[in-house]
Amino acid sequence: MQRNGARGQGVSMPKGVPETVPDDGLTTRQRRNQPVLAVHTGPGKGKSTAAFGMALRAWNQGFDVAVFQFVKSAKWKVGEEAAFRTLGRLHAETGAGGPVEWHKMGEGWSWTRKQGTDEDHAAAALAGWREISRRLAAEQHRFYVLDEFTYPLKWGWVEVAEVVETLRDRPGNQHVVITGRDAPQALLDVADLVTEMTKVKHPMDAGRKGQRGIEW
Amino acid sequence: MQRNGARGQGVSMPKGVPETVPDDGLTTRQRRNQPVLAVHTGPGKGKSTAAFGMALRAWNQGFDVAVFQFVKSAKWKVGEEAAFRTLGRLHAETGAGGPVEWHKMGEGWSWTRKQGTDEDHAAAALAGWREISRRLAAEQHRFYVLDEFTYPLKWGWVEVAEVVETLRDRPGNQHVVITGRDAPQALLDVADLVTEMTKVKHPMDAGRKGQRGIEW
Repeated sequence: MQRNGARGQGVSMPKGVPETVPDDGLTTRQRRNQPVLAVHTGPGKGKSTAAFGMALRAWNQGFDVAVFQFVKSAKWKVGEEAAFRTLGRLHAETGAGGPVEWHKMGEGWSWTRKQGTDEDHAAAALAGWREISRRLAAEQHRFYVLDEFTYPLKWGWVEVAEVVETLRDRPGNQHVVITGRDAPQALLDVADLVTEMTKVKHPMDAGRKGQRGIEW
Repeated sequence: MQRNGARGQGVSMPKGVPETVPDDGLTTRQRRNQPVLAVHTGPGKGKSTAAFGMALRAWNQGFDVAVFQFVKSAKWKVGEEAAFRTLGRLHAETGAGGPVEWHKMGEGWSWTRKQGTDEDHAAAALAGWREISRRLAAEQHRFYVLDEFTYPLKWGWVEVAEVVETLRDRPGNQHVVITGRDAPQALLDVADLVTEMTKVKHPMDAGRKGQRGIEW
C-alpha cells in the first residue's frame, strides 16, 4: 500500500527550495527578509480568509498586525474581527503574539473621531489609503491587511499609480496583503505573491444562504 | 470621483443572496444549517491558510474545532498550530471561542500513545482517517480541518470511495474542510464548496526562500 513513502515526507519541501537563484547580489538571508506584497484576487472564496490566516501566522510571530476593511459589510467579517480583537487583548494582557488593530471604513475609520456620515465612500476610501500611506512611511506596523482594497482602486476612488509607487517604495520590512476581485495589472506587477481564487462550486449556487461559523 | 456609491455598500451583498431557490422542501433556516463540506484545491497558495481562516471563524462562534495534518512538515504550519493552541487554551481558561484539538500524522497522531515509528506513512494516514471517521460518527467535533488530506487519497493510502461515503452520510451538523492539490473528482462531486487556488506569481520564483511570519 505504501506506494511512495518519500513523497509523504517531501510534499512540502518544494516550497522551501527556490526554483532559481537570482543574480541580485543579496545573500539568502537578505532575500529571506525582504518584505512581501501579496495580492489575493479572482472570483472565488478564500481571498480574505487566506489573508486573515496569514495575519494569524504573523500575529503568532509577534508581528504588529493592522487590518483595514475597505468595504462596508455588516456581518461578513465579524468572526475574524472578534477573533483578532481577542488575540490583540491576549497580547496586551499576556504578551502572547503581537498587537492587533482593526479598522473599518464603514464606521468612519476607527482612528478618526468623526469622519461624518459614511455617505461619501470615495472620500472615506481615499482617507483610509492616505492613513495607510502615512503608517507605511512611519513603519508603524509589520503586517497590513488591506481587505477588499481592489474595489476603491477599480472605481477610481484611489489612484492606482499612487498606491503602486507607495507600496513599491515602502521602507523597512513591512508585509502587505491586498484582497479583492479584479486587482489592477499595475498592482500585480509590483506584487511578490499573487494568488487567484477560482470558484468551482459554491453552496449558494444550490440556493443555500451563508451560515454562522462558516460565512461569518 | 464617487462613481458608484451604491456598489460601495453592496459589494458583499450577492454573497447572501442565493442565485436560485431549490425545490427541496426545506425552509431557508433548514438549508442554512446544513453542514458544509469544503475542498480547497489547485496549485496555488492559500489552500490551508484559508482553511485555518475558516477555523478561526468557527472557533469564534464557539464551535469545537479539530485539525488533522496529513503531511509531515517540520515548520510550515507551526504558526497556525501555535496560534490555535493559544486559542484553545484561551477557551479553557476564559470560555472565549470554542475548544481546539490539533493532531499531526508526522508525530504518530496525538491521540495515540505510541503509533510506533512513522516509517509507514500509508498505515499512519489510514489510521488517521479511521479515527476521523469514528469521530464523525460520534459527532465529536463541529468543525474539522483535514489538512493535505488529498495526498493520501491520491497515493491510494486511503480509499476515495470510503471517504466519500463517510463524508456524505455524516450525521448532524459537522463542517469539514479538506485541503490539498489534485482533489479526486468523486470528492469534488460531494463537496458543497470547492475553491481552486491558482498560482499567478510567487516570491520563490524569484529565488526567495520562505520567511518567518509569512510562510510559517
